[in-house]
Amino acid sequence: MYRTARKVAVMGAAGAIGSNVVQDLLSCGVASRIAMYDPYEPGLKGAAEEILHCAYPDADVSWTTDAAEALTDASYVISSGGAPRKEGMTREDLLLGNCEIARQLGRDIRAHAPNAEFVIIVFNPADITGLVTLVHSGLSPSCVTTLAALDSTRLRAALAQHFDLLPDAVTGCATFGGHGEKMAVFKDGIEVAGVPLAEILAGRAVNGRTMSPDEWNAIKDRVRNGGAAIIKLRGRSSFQSPAHQSVAMLKARIECSAYPWPCGAYFADGPYAHVMMAAPVTFSTLGMTAAVPDGDDEDVAALQDSYRHLCSLRDEVIRAGLLPPVADWTSLNPNL
Amino acid sequence: MYRTARKVAVMGAAGAIGSNVVQDLLSCGVASRIAMYDPYEPGLKGAAEEILHCAYPDADVSWTTDAAEALTDASYVISSGGAPRKEGMTREDLLLGNCEIARQLGRDIRAHAPNAEFVIIVFNPADITGLVTLVHSGLSPSCVTTLAALDSTRLRAALAQHFDLLPDAVTGCATFGGHGEKMAVFKDGIEVAGVPLAEILAGRAVNGRTMSPDEWNAIKDRVRNGGAAIIKLRGRSSFQSPAHQSVAMLKARIECSAYPWPCGAYFADGPYAHVMMAAPVTFSTLGMTAAVPDGDDEDVAALQDSYRHLCSLRDEVIRAGLLPPVADWTSLNPNL
Repeated sequence: MYRTARKVAVMGAAGAIGSNVVQDLLSCGVASRIAMYDPYEPGLKGAAEEILHCAYPDADVSWTTDAAEALTDASYVISSGGAPRKEGMTREDLLLGNCEIARQLGRDIRAHAPNAEFVIIVFNPADITGLVTLVHSGLSPSCVTTLAALDSTRLRAALAQHFDLLPDAVTGCATFGGHGEKMAVFKDGIEVAGVPLAEILAGRAVNGRTMSPDEWNAIKDRVRNGGAAIIKLRGRSSFQSPAHQSVAMLKARIECSAYPWPCGAYFADGPYAHVMMAAPVTFSTLGMTAAVPDGDDEDVAALQDSYRHLCSLRDEVIRAGLLPPVADWTSLNPNL
Repeated sequence: MYRTARKVAVMGAAGAIGSNVVQDLLSCGVASRIAMYDPYEPGLKGAAEEILHCAYPDADVSWTTDAAEALTDASYVISSGGAPRKEGMTREDLLLGNCEIARQLGRDIRAHAPNAEFVIIVFNPADITGLVTLVHSGLSPSCVTTLAALDSTRLRAALAQHFDLLPDAVTGCATFGGHGEKMAVFKDGIEVAGVPLAEILAGRAVNGRTMSPDEWNAIKDRVRNGGAAIIKLRGRSSFQSPAHQSVAMLKARIECSAYPWPCGAYFADGPYAHVMMAAPVTFSTLGMTAAVPDGDDEDVAALQDSYRHLCSLRDEVIRAGLLPPVADWTSLNPNL
């Protein structure tokens, strides 16, 4: 009934994303043995009670405020356990505060779950918190990823709405690099009802609708601000889609099946070395293998720009002492 | 991939329960064609965007602030669309306000979804809002139910925790009648790791643990206050477990499979006539068939007490003009 009976540690399980991850792991039939961790005991207990009241058959769900207990024997880890941005905090405050949490998570994984096969980092800025977790965990890059799908799924949804089609009619949507203003929204490869986006931008109609370059730019802006739009509409940041796509990634990893969206991936060399960024991946029994994104000149230029931004964030974290200098990473994690 | 491609209307889809219902319908592979309705447009749009960003394959999810549009052609309806209790409101305020919403829902179903095969009412007090919906909808009682599982799943969880066992080791847990203080928590039929609860209360240990009559009474109290406990722990009323169990009920109805928990059911005659209350049910292609709950003398006395309380709530709604007198129900709904 469930894809695996191996233990999944869900960190930050009292939160909106974390508690939704637990429910979705069970509803999607992905995992039955789940350890819920959160430092906030009342919320954790409440979320765990709710999961028990869901009455999933054959579920073995436990909860603990001890991260070591949650991680011990875990084959898989999903963490949305970062601090949320609060009033008066700058983005840099969030970056460094959450990278401190990521460093501790990495160290906890090294100590208590050194055989973890797949770790998914969800808390923002995930590109950087995922990188910090990876370096400190000692795990292979094939075992650590970040949630990177949502920009791409938002792009697909926006195009489907524009052309009044069901989302499945739009294929090849992907954003690569970082999340946020500097993401690289690729147009190469997108097809709407089988028609390449390049042809549409050159004037061809689909389902009776055209798309001007200005409209395409507006859609790209909409994708870049997709998270902020949800906050404005719902009064809180998105939690259902991050949770579900994290579960979908784990499912694909467990099944070694195709996952259609970009995942956060670390590159040891090549043009995008020493960051974690959204890239196309494949899953096998050995873990995750990432490919360098491929697009037209405009796409690649946007990705290079995004890469430079990620490097600057990474270097800020190095200056703050939360990561060693890049040259020293392998002494901390020989798998890098 | 999904159990049905027929339309499910989810009413109150911007809310915590409603948006979770939509996600869970898709994650559980129950339904792919979902119309989300809510009068609160921004929240509805935000919830719908999140569902689109989940990127479920082959999903056809729409949203509308027009109840008629949502209900037209719907085979199934799940409604959590009642008003929440606000500060300064009495329970009676909630009862009458939500029964007014239920009356309108019943009339909307009669007008726009007269062929609906299964309607699940979740908003409180569900025993009464479900009854009001049924009477005004014109549907057969075999087609209208209320969420009634949570008291029973809470009972099972509490017993499993007491005996330090996984929930599946505890069987036969059920509460019948109404929800709230006057629910009838049945002990007849409960087994813990195969040992009848009556034997345990007589002193027999299971997994090294005993249970005194006082401890059993404390567990019953815990179940009666299960909803309030979640509010205290999470700062909000439960939404994951109501959503998931509503989806589980619909799945069982679509598959005509066994559903292990009580459902709200209307009895046209017998000892519990003319209310909707939690009872054991079976699903077939004809809909839902309820049985009169069976227990020992103490259980049955508790159920009779619960029934009297439901009748008094029903009569209050009749006095308020939201339901006609019982003798006139068949003129409004010949299926009763």
